Amino acid sequence: MYKFEISIRVRYGETDKMGYVYNGNYATYFEVGRVETLRKLGIPYKNIEDSGYALPVRDLQIRYFKPGFYDDELKIVTILSKMPDVRMRFDYEIYNPKDELITKGHTTLVFVKQSTGKPCQPPQNVTEALQPYFS
Amino acid sequence: MYKFEISIRVRYGETDKMGYVYNGNYATYFEVGRVETLRKLGIPYKNIEDSGYALPVRDLQIRYFKPGFYDDELKIVTILSKMPDVRMRFDYEIYNPKDELITKGHTTLVFVKQSTGKPCQPPQNVTEALQPYFS
Amino acid sequence: MYKFEISIRVRYGETDKMGYVYNGNYATYFEVGRVETLRKLGIPYKNIEDSGYALPVRDLQIRYFKPGFYDDELKIVTILSKMPDVRMRFDYEIYNPKDELITKGHTTLVFVKQSTGKPCQPPQNVTEALQPYFS
Amino acid sequence: MYKFEISIRVRYGETDKMGYVYNGNYATYFEVGRVETLRKLGIPYKNIEDSGYALPVRDLQIRYFKPGFYDDELKIVTILSKMPDVRMRFDYEIYNPKDELITKGHTTLVFVKQSTGKPCQPPQNVTEALQPYFS
Repeated sequence: MYKFEISIRVRYGETDKMGYVYNGNYATYFEVGRVETLRKLGIPYKNIEDSGYALPVRDLQIRYFKPGFYDDELKIVTILSKMPDVRMRFDYEIYNPKDELITKGHTTLVFVKQSTGKPCQPPQNVTEALQPYFS
Repeated sequence: MYKFEISIRVRYGETDKMGYVYNGNYATYFEVGRVETLRKLGIPYKNIEDSGYALPVRDLQIRYFKPGFYDDELKIVTILSKMPDVRMRFDYEIYNPKDELITKGHTTLVFVKQSTGKPCQPPQNVTEALQPYFS
Repeated sequence: MYKFEISIRVRYGETDKMGYVYNGNYATYFEVGRVETLRKLGIPYKNIEDSGYALPVRDLQIRYFKPGFYDDELKIVTILSKMPDVRMRFDYEIYNPKDELITKGHTTLVFVKQSTGKPCQPPQNVTEALQPYFS
Repeated sequence: MYKFEISIRVRYGETDKMGYVYNGNYATYFEVGRVETLRKLGIPYKNIEDSGYALPVRDLQIRYFKPGFYDDELKIVTILSKMPDVRMRFDYEIYNPKDELITKGHTTLVFVKQSTGKPCQPPQNVTEALQPYFS
């Protein structure tokens, strides 16, 4: 298991007229959690792409418990529960400044070779970076 | 059952560097489908809000089968399969110009009274507008 | 001179907690105006890109007179006042449902050859499509 | 004069199919620069709003010199050159990781009393926080 936490600040343009973070923007927050988790593991997403792979999102699920508000500093917890194969699943939990769970979700991404557009096994450096946490 | 179709055109800013519609933007497309469905039924979402109710999203699920591309005219099919109670579920299917299903998902929204912030039954005009399709 | 009008409907996620269209989203509305103008002229932006050119934005200016609101059907007027050379300027006026001018602005775009990344003259089909309106 | 610097990381969804930061997203980056500048000065934007004022954007101008790329850590420099009165002007400069100026712009905001919707002088705590830098 691998778990990583970061904070983001809610931007004005991310709220809607209800005064809440617009529901679709949590997909972006999940992305930030995912990308910073990979960076922390020494396998920045950008490098994965630059080495000829892509990681399109295959499915996304979000449950909303409480609203996020403008200027809130939200804590995003990203969790990897199993070694990736063709698919890589990320779980997310988002907490407000009172440390209440406001949103929970996951995304499944698929490793794809850019040259063929076909699903494939993860590149070796990804496997090596994650191995220590799953044995 | 009630089903409604509209088209939207993919905007440049909705794509990402992979050249695809960014995964989070489908939440916005679902919203457009939902809002135009309610308008067609004679119960515009704006009026529901103006009459003292809110409909925050409780959960969102999206499956991505194929990418959407810049300038594609996408068909959004919105489906109401059951009468709403405190919750109202919308299912969505998005088709590309070749009529291939590219994305599928649903959202569950909750009726909330703005004055109390508490979940509640849908307003009467919503129930009346939908009744003919569910009997 | 060439002038073209289209309507767009303000989306929920485009508003902010002030209840107005977020200021940055007008850049997207301008893009919609520009793209539909080019389509109307028979030179869709997508085709310009597919034929080896890009049209990055060089400058953007927006003045905000009145807010835009959720669900408003806004009228976007796009105006071409002179034949493009290396640069192509678009002026925009956005009107609310009461036909009040709420926003005004312009963008200057630059024709660039994708192969070289260098500014260049517009492709011939663009020049030909516009010629009738500027003589 | 008051000047403040922060960094932001370009998100995937902020890029477009050209592989660049979408032009409209710089308005959001400017907002982040502005908001963090006010926070640094001890007058968080959120507090200004909560004390009965709003600061809608009156005009926005952006010049684009070079593209911003995915995952770039961009430096946003926000500059206040004069004491605000009814209007408050912010200038911005955005630098890429090579320290090249990629974008430059400004926004003018207007102090408005929420109760009347009318332009007004800035609240006293804003004036007091800024005074030391303009004398």
